[in-house]
Amino acid sequence: MTSTVRLLQVKPLSAEAFKPFGDVIEATDTAKHFSINQGYAERYDRLAQVDANDLGGQVGISVFRAKARPMPIELSVLEKHPLGSQAFMPMSGHAYLVVVALGGEKPDTDKAQCFLASATQGVNYAKGTWHHPLLALHDGDFLVVDRSGAKGDMNCVEFSLQGMSLRLLYP
Amino acid sequence: MTSTVRLLQVKPLSAEAFKPFGDVIEATDTAKHFSINQGYAERYDRLAQVDANDLGGQVGISVFRAKARPMPIELSVLEKHPLGSQAFMPMSGHAYLVVVALGGEKPDTDKAQCFLASATQGVNYAKGTWHHPLLALHDGDFLVVDRSGAKGDMNCVEFSLQGMSLRLLYP
Repeated sequence: MTSTVRLLQVKPLSAEAFKPFGDVIEATDTAKHFSINQGYAERYDRLAQVDANDLGGQVGISVFRAKARPMPIELSVLEKHPLGSQAFMPMSGHAYLVVVALGGEKPDTDKAQCFLASATQGVNYAKGTWHHPLLALHDGDFLVVDRSGAKGDMNCVEFSLQGMSLRLLYP
Repeated sequence: MTSTVRLLQVKPLSAEAFKPFGDVIEATDTAKHFSINQGYAERYDRLAQVDANDLGGQVGISVFRAKARPMPIELSVLEKHPLGSQAFMPMSGHAYLVVVALGGEKPDTDKAQCFLASATQGVNYAKGTWHHPLLALHDGDFLVVDRSGAKGDMNCVEFSLQGMSLRLLYP
């Protein structure tokens, strides 16, 4: 049996490129921003909207303490959360990778995309967006804002990438 | 006219001490935590719950780009958000100060408290909790999770501290 290796080009993360998958959380001049706190802070407002109310869900704030993935990074699984958005913001000053795909019941892996997020860029996966679990390049913490639902809620669907021979291609 | 200077002792932030005012967002062993992402992340789960649904509010994620307050820090105002919680998480690796007070229509300034939050401690002010606007000790960014409501919502009440001669006393 032969297997075809598919290369996934790692691209810089931008709000425009990420739009089909959710929001980039980043304080840029193009975001709506204004001075608050007697001039001691600039508010970059509503960079992402949390979408968690389905089936009576609430919003929780968690910390993910990530370990760096060993190189070369192996993509193992995509997952999606049908009932809510999920936001990640790096807190340790390190860049990280984001792998996403469109698709409904199954992800369209042929068109999966990989972005390199900088240390000051967060992402908010839109509800139901296929994404790889956290791909940290360094050990470090992420703040996570996502849905907190009832115990029986089915809010995580997984799709295995084993045997798909997806390889990351760095610029 | 004489004025009495009141000293506000700066204390280290702890979950227990902060409990009357909200949550401390911190990945500690005492928090509920478990392994996820094929062992590549530890999830410190639901360190804070967002409370933003009153009057149809939604939850937004913003960035506050803070400027360091000049020393000695002058406390100018307390504010509260009657319709929702508000969470702050430092992203730039710097400690900061948190000033809070109990009270209803007016804050009980005689019992105001000041905490020194470390670079890895966030706070989530419970709905309606009197607090001073962000008191950064260094320039840096904070991730903020708070309520996004309708334009007419009255979700910020201020109380001036001018002339109250509150001084911070560092340990």
